Amino acid sequence: MRPLILITNDDGLNARGIQHLIGVAQDYGDIVVMAPEGNASGKSCSITCHEPLRVHTVEESEAKSLYTCSGTPADCVKLAVEYYCPRRPGLVLSGINHGSNASINIIYSATMGAVIEACLSGFQSIGFSLLNHHPQADFSGCTAAVRHILEYVLQNPLPDWTALNVNIPRLDADAIKGIKVCRASRARWTHSMEKRVDPIGLPYWWMTGQFECQDKEEGTDLFALDEGYVSVVPVRPDFTNEKALNQLSTLNSL
Amino acid sequence: MRPLILITNDDGLNARGIQHLIGVAQDYGDIVVMAPEGNASGKSCSITCHEPLRVHTVEESEAKSLYTCSGTPADCVKLAVEYYCPRRPGLVLSGINHGSNASINIIYSATMGAVIEACLSGFQSIGFSLLNHHPQADFSGCTAAVRHILEYVLQNPLPDWTALNVNIPRLDADAIKGIKVCRASRARWTHSMEKRVDPIGLPYWWMTGQFECQDKEEGTDLFALDEGYVSVVPVRPDFTNEKALNQLSTLNSL
Repeated sequence: MRPLILITNDDGLNARGIQHLIGVAQDYGDIVVMAPEGNASGKSCSITCHEPLRVHTVEESEAKSLYTCSGTPADCVKLAVEYYCPRRPGLVLSGINHGSNASINIIYSATMGAVIEACLSGFQSIGFSLLNHHPQADFSGCTAAVRHILEYVLQNPLPDWTALNVNIPRLDADAIKGIKVCRASRARWTHSMEKRVDPIGLPYWWMTGQFECQDKEEGTDLFALDEGYVSVVPVRPDFTNEKALNQLSTLNSL
Repeated sequence: MRPLILITNDDGLNARGIQHLIGVAQDYGDIVVMAPEGNASGKSCSITCHEPLRVHTVEESEAKSLYTCSGTPADCVKLAVEYYCPRRPGLVLSGINHGSNASINIIYSATMGAVIEACLSGFQSIGFSLLNHHPQADFSGCTAAVRHILEYVLQNPLPDWTALNVNIPRLDADAIKGIKVCRASRARWTHSMEKRVDPIGLPYWWMTGQFECQDKEEGTDLFALDEGYVSVVPVRPDFTNEKALNQLSTLNSL
């Protein structure tokens, strides 16, 4: 039996990125898509605890079923695996996101929030992002890398408690140099809020920001992307800083 | 000059937990509070990219200023440090949350989302949670641990790229055995969605879930909490699974 592949994203079902991913993935398995109704950018791994969730069926068949959900991408994964997948998914994919989720962007990313959720729940999961946030972005440069990574993971199950954060440079397919497995670069967003005044004179703020890379050494995702490689960061759903455990042991007491 | 302490949470300004934290923290510095307007539980490290943010001033003085914000806890931190803190905060605190953020709950927690955001931006930051989600929870058992940890961090700056996730057992102060620095337990939520039918016969889903601990060894936060200790997990804003980097090196190619 072909594997079942569950797909979600944070840009909604009509985004070019998820349509491209569905097109590639259906060569490898039967597809269930559960995408958020609207744009869920920046929603991280948020879940909807205090509101009902609704699902709309767009299309249903054995080979491909498409649904939209009023919740977040992480909600989409929870709902789909419990109620909409006819069997256990062999893979959970998210994306292809319009825009980078490299470095610390993973923290805010709902594309990757869905991947973290799927990994927590014990599924093989991969998030894909293209370094082009334009709604009309051309995803054709992504195809070879997506195929290579899907084939690899279907043949080589991911290590325990591990998912993949894949970022693809904005280059034509033949200009992409290869794939590099890396750690996430350290960075931050500064100047993140712009103050504005509304038509009746009241202030409001709108998120903006400058990306400040603090670490672009060889071995990081931002280094690999700059060099023209697809970056693959193995991620785990755990923020524990093991290196700090010893250093903080003097706090043990009351 | 007294340190400036920025405080947020995910339960809003009127929650008992944040009021208790403000009460303790004002012994150690001047206070700026920027709390979400409503309940932001489960919002993880989400940020508001596509909507304006509004701030309401509740009270302003040199020793204590209180604001509410229409955004998420992570938005609250971004906005407060850029526009509402009269000087650079020496500490960013979040909580005290009504309910556990131990183990994998940190992934979904907006209390901890604010802490991750503050750590990313270079601030010393600590999230506090009490293992009691009741709105009328009694926070008096938290005081000694909060004081001890604040005094420790004010005297011993946290290691680089590290924040703290503090969880406090639901016990009277004199029944708490001490503080343990730990790693996060591995766990997951199962049976996360309940299907219901609305009054006109249409289905909807509501989040629920059973917490399934997969790892309660000595050295984990869930073990420490079960034993009656306050758990302190050092966290870093990075999901990279370093242990998997080598194992995945066969993926380097195209």
